[in-house]
Amino acid sequence: MIYPEEFEKLQESFKSFPGIGDKSAERFVYAIDSLDIDKVEDIADNLINFKKNIRKCKICGHLTNRDVCNICDSESRDKSIICVVEDSKSVFSFEKTGKFRGTYHVLGGLISPIDEINPEDLNIYSLINDRINDETLEVIIALNPTVEGEMTSLYIQKLLEDKNVKVSRLSYGIPMGADIEYLDPLTIIRAMDDRKFLS
Amino acid sequence: MIYPEEFEKLQESFKSFPGIGDKSAERFVYAIDSLDIDKVEDIADNLINFKKNIRKCKICGHLTNRDVCNICDSESRDKSIICVVEDSKSVFSFEKTGKFRGTYHVLGGLISPIDEINPEDLNIYSLINDRINDETLEVIIALNPTVEGEMTSLYIQKLLEDKNVKVSRLSYGIPMGADIEYLDPLTIIRAMDDRKFLS
Repeated sequence: MIYPEEFEKLQESFKSFPGIGDKSAERFVYAIDSLDIDKVEDIADNLINFKKNIRKCKICGHLTNRDVCNICDSESRDKSIICVVEDSKSVFSFEKTGKFRGTYHVLGGLISPIDEINPEDLNIYSLINDRINDETLEVIIALNPTVEGEMTSLYIQKLLEDKNVKVSRLSYGIPMGADIEYLDPLTIIRAMDDRKFLS
Repeated sequence: MIYPEEFEKLQESFKSFPGIGDKSAERFVYAIDSLDIDKVEDIADNLINFKKNIRKCKICGHLTNRDVCNICDSESRDKSIICVVEDSKSVFSFEKTGKFRGTYHVLGGLISPIDEINPEDLNIYSLINDRINDETLEVIIALNPTVEGEMTSLYIQKLLEDKNVKVSRLSYGIPMGADIEYLDPLTIIRAMDDRKFLS
């Protein structure tokens, strides 16, 4: 027993963080050791407060500390446009651009038969049953262009066929600032397919 | 206000960890979000328990959950040999080799005029005044071979001149500029075996 029990337990806790192995976890323990007790209590409180207060928005599924998130609750957001995303990370990314004024619908994952994630495990049916109404004009599908993203996108498109709404997806193409020379062939093909006529 | 308050506070907490910036801290927050409340409470408890119970050994200064660490308290350790180290990380590194059967003295840092760390800020005088007695045969100085390590080593050597003990330092099998924490056990054993007597 080289390390004290409390040391090993805290190290184990840190190893549950993504990308953190033995060495990084040990460094975190020394960092905690060098902090004042007040600061460590703050960290512990922040963990508990986050876990106790952060929940999913009853309307869109986005992370929030209220029943309804500040986007769904905002008078200034356009409720007729719903942007469908995989998770709250995507919402934060779109919000950082400050350009999108519609609302979101957070699926909480993507359909993946290999990982046994089926449509009923995701926040899909509430989109169809609860979100879309006579005022809905457009559903933007904003999922990652992966196998799972495409599969989920197709599934949602299918469910939306009967509804009287426009369905769109993000454009695929060359990222700004990229060099065509280094792009993968699939992206180039997509950029060609999705080309925008200028005249 | 894109992120909920609890999200930002927890992210800030994680940013106080070494080497963790915005992005990693955000990933940690999502990881916490995906854990059960029980697991998060465990992490919070482990933080508090570590901070409340881990203290410095009254004899050697090593991290311990008791008044006297299990090394100083052990019948089987050779109290006549004291290995002087910078911090508890070094103790753990030596202990992992399983070869050293003496005791330690943890300085809690190195003399560094630039960083305004003077001898009186470190656990040096208790080595001279309290640890060394008639039964002490040898003091091994096991500090990193850096400017601060050499300076601290020389300072301790000077203080030990009047004492009737052998003083040794680790051999320079250790590459200059390296950190004991990251060395493989074999190199540490070699450095221990090849230690050079100074008096």
